[in-house]
Amino acid sequence: VKELKDAQVTIVGLGLMGASLAGALRGKCRRVVGVARRAESIEIALARGFVDSGTTDVAEGVCEADVVVLATPVRVILQQLPDIAPLLPEGCLLMDLGSTKGRIAVEMAQLPGHIQPLGGHPMCGKEKSGVEAADPALYKGCTFILSPLKRTSQEALTLGCAVAEAAGAHPLILEPERQDFLVATVSHLPYLLACALVATADATTSQDPAAWEVVATGFRSTSRLAGSDVTMMTDILLTNREEVLKALDTYQEHLGELIRLVDTADEEKMRQVLGVIRKTRREMYPASQQVIE
Amino acid sequence: VKELKDAQVTIVGLGLMGASLAGALRGKCRRVVGVARRAESIEIALARGFVDSGTTDVAEGVCEADVVVLATPVRVILQQLPDIAPLLPEGCLLMDLGSTKGRIAVEMAQLPGHIQPLGGHPMCGKEKSGVEAADPALYKGCTFILSPLKRTSQEALTLGCAVAEAAGAHPLILEPERQDFLVATVSHLPYLLACALVATADATTSQDPAAWEVVATGFRSTSRLAGSDVTMMTDILLTNREEVLKALDTYQEHLGELIRLVDTADEEKMRQVLGVIRKTRREMYPASQQVIE
Repeated sequence: VKELKDAQVTIVGLGLMGASLAGALRGKCRRVVGVARRAESIEIALARGFVDSGTTDVAEGVCEADVVVLATPVRVILQQLPDIAPLLPEGCLLMDLGSTKGRIAVEMAQLPGHIQPLGGHPMCGKEKSGVEAADPALYKGCTFILSPLKRTSQEALTLGCAVAEAAGAHPLILEPERQDFLVATVSHLPYLLACALVATADATTSQDPAAWEVVATGFRSTSRLAGSDVTMMTDILLTNREEVLKALDTYQEHLGELIRLVDTADEEKMRQVLGVIRKTRREMYPASQQVIE
Repeated sequence: VKELKDAQVTIVGLGLMGASLAGALRGKCRRVVGVARRAESIEIALARGFVDSGTTDVAEGVCEADVVVLATPVRVILQQLPDIAPLLPEGCLLMDLGSTKGRIAVEMAQLPGHIQPLGGHPMCGKEKSGVEAADPALYKGCTFILSPLKRTSQEALTLGCAVAEAAGAHPLILEPERQDFLVATVSHLPYLLACALVATADATTSQDPAAWEVVATGFRSTSRLAGSDVTMMTDILLTNREEVLKALDTYQEHLGELIRLVDTADEEKMRQVLGVIRKTRREMYPASQQVIE
């Protein structure tokens, strides 16, 4: 395992996440190679300076790599792992950027012994997808979860941390199960709520032409995640299904309590419950940060 | 009824909404007078240049007003209307900034004949409350709903529009019932969803110290409204209870459908449903606007 500055990093998948990471790493390692299915994606990545070279041939792209990052949807990663691993040189660090880690960790554990596997999940993104939306600053300041396996060497983990840090992110080492539990509530649940809100507005108030004139910034914020990439989200929901269902269950209990408070018009209890929630939210995000929401 | 530039405008209630409106109108009318319960709020409003003068005595504050704006919570407005109306000069425009309009319209209809009543609801705000958080730019670009009664004269409505426009807002004339139906879905419902989300995270993932390190911007946006002022929101939920319950009912149907899709892992249907929702969300907010979310 080399130091990052001497390493060839190959990014497999030049969508929003992969192309942004490529652009962030370029110049900080020996060489960034992009692999994509579509030649057009490679052309754009080259034109925008995200990669040193690119290819549609996976074997060619990874054969001299020191680090390979799979930047494809979770279920594509699950298919790619056993196909790509045999193509990698001895000691190669094989990372991914998949949003759920449980099933990927199981698959990684079965890879040939000459590979150093490391799960990864950067907590950033935006509603637009594809290489066109890529931005090397995307990872700046975000938490980059790393899920090492028992077989992952300390050197490989250190190199993985260096990749995250070179992109401007903060590495956070977390077991796969614990990451899947946490993101179900802080990421996947908010997506589903936003979707249900958009569907509700679409079914009712959207019929009134005045509806969009009265939409305040609150609806916009609350519904924002409903614009997320469908392929990515379908993948996430299907590969983190159990944790998502548990989070939805807890959510429905809490929503049910709020509905009862409105229904019974119990003012005192309502004030108390909403007050505790407000205090919790404000503790989550100190005042100094609230302006940028 | 005078033109706005010749009018004395008295704002009753110097919280976030009232003090911001006062600051926005100052210099665009003859005189802005602030009325507050606490002398300290008046001192701050004077020091920050939001008002020309202030008083804790409502009668004194309104006796020479051409326009009076009640900038207090909805149920306080309901109490103030019959108390303040007799103190107003002949032909005085009496507006409010309450977030729900149905009950206020009923109360306004019963006021003495020498008053020109006009319901108002500016679609803006922020999570901080009080005169300390006031900002004369708060109303800029927002929709300012106006709900005239049958008895409201065209001149009074024109003056109300001038108040909204002087603050930088776009007036939108809407019947009280229609405004209450619309804001239940686009404003009150998102608040409750955000609250239930915060309560869910607080009950589960918050126990894990890593939870806040993995929070992406999505949770932040979706939960933002949970930081709203509790007095205002309690007031809103209690005075728009029926419409809010109807909106919650529709929301639960749509959330239920999404839960079934996750539970049954029906990929094809999931893609289709999430795809329609994504398209709807993107049509609501054209791409050019998405950067400022």
